[in-house]
Amino acid sequence: MDEKPIPDIVVGRLPLYLRALRHMISEGRQLTSSQELAERLGISAAQIRKDLSHFGEFGKQGTGYNIDFLAEQLERILKVDRVWNMAVIGAGDIGSAVARYQGFANRGFKITLIFDNDPEKIGRRIGPFTVHNMDQIGTLIKAENIKVAMIAVPTAYAQEVADQLVSAGIKAILNYAPLNINVPSGVWVEYTDPVTHLQHMTYYLD
Amino acid sequence: MDEKPIPDIVVGRLPLYLRALRHMISEGRQLTSSQELAERLGISAAQIRKDLSHFGEFGKQGTGYNIDFLAEQLERILKVDRVWNMAVIGAGDIGSAVARYQGFANRGFKITLIFDNDPEKIGRRIGPFTVHNMDQIGTLIKAENIKVAMIAVPTAYAQEVADQLVSAGIKAILNYAPLNINVPSGVWVEYTDPVTHLQHMTYYLD
Repeated sequence: MDEKPIPDIVVGRLPLYLRALRHMISEGRQLTSSQELAERLGISAAQIRKDLSHFGEFGKQGTGYNIDFLAEQLERILKVDRVWNMAVIGAGDIGSAVARYQGFANRGFKITLIFDNDPEKIGRRIGPFTVHNMDQIGTLIKAENIKVAMIAVPTAYAQEVADQLVSAGIKAILNYAPLNINVPSGVWVEYTDPVTHLQHMTYYLD
Repeated sequence: MDEKPIPDIVVGRLPLYLRALRHMISEGRQLTSSQELAERLGISAAQIRKDLSHFGEFGKQGTGYNIDFLAEQLERILKVDRVWNMAVIGAGDIGSAVARYQGFANRGFKITLIFDNDPEKIGRRIGPFTVHNMDQIGTLIKAENIKVAMIAVPTAYAQEVADQLVSAGIKAILNYAPLNINVPSGVWVEYTDPVTHLQHMTYYLD
């Protein structure tokens, strides 16, 4: 086991490995190899072996990886062998779609709160949730000890909302607004912006 | 100008630079530096200078970058100095949110078609679009010469839909389904899966 900090780019690939393994499990599979993972993911087999070797010895030369075991180990490493409650800020089209999204279950996350500042939306139901007033962010997030939040508000409000979330004790923010937000050290932000993916691909088109 | 192929990881960062520059333009700014971009993006200034140097000389030592000029050059390089029409497959929560999303305009993309296979949804309107029957994918995408599509169908159908899109001439697919899909060489796929971002962050939480 390597005691040096693991490069963040390696950590960022672990969820992709876990997703591919979970898919193999749903196919009833039991063993895989770095070669098969490489083909599914478009990452080289050598890179996959090197990435996993940071965390221990998971496979056997010639036998490959036990899928269940490797998936369980990755879940433990990524700390999704538990369920993280989440808050969603913004009950517009994106926030509502996120709140209704079925893909969080069994992957370590559960939405428990949704907020908006629009009087038309506050008090309404979205799926199983009642939309709370954004002035309750601090109180409710602290009361439920939530550490993970998603920002789905218009770009102009994203920084202000991030500041409120940090004050409320949030440590990880997934930002759907196409804007880089500033947070103090010890708080993590990731961005999901479909346009950056699209622009990455059009580079290669004629 | 470097004639070797640019590493894909470098290409993937250009949309982030462009997004930051566009945001500075919206703030009325005219000049920036690799240091300022570094602070906004959490990428080192040296990396940013090196990435941009693959494509030419955009800044002056001591003066920095002209924001408008650099943004225009990046738009040209990423081929988003034009508008790419897009098809969305799946009119569920995610597809509907994507179809209503205002963030594509001015960034090089425009949704023009949306498809579903649910008789309840076909013919209905979502924002400005009428939902088309998925059996029309080939005909309509070819007729409109669309090259870019987004898959927002349940995971079990993602590969089948990808195959139809490739047959229809699609060259770039943004996949919202948490499943790796196989496409032939010359077709590009990117994934947007919020859970991989969340799992990346929980690695660092207690």
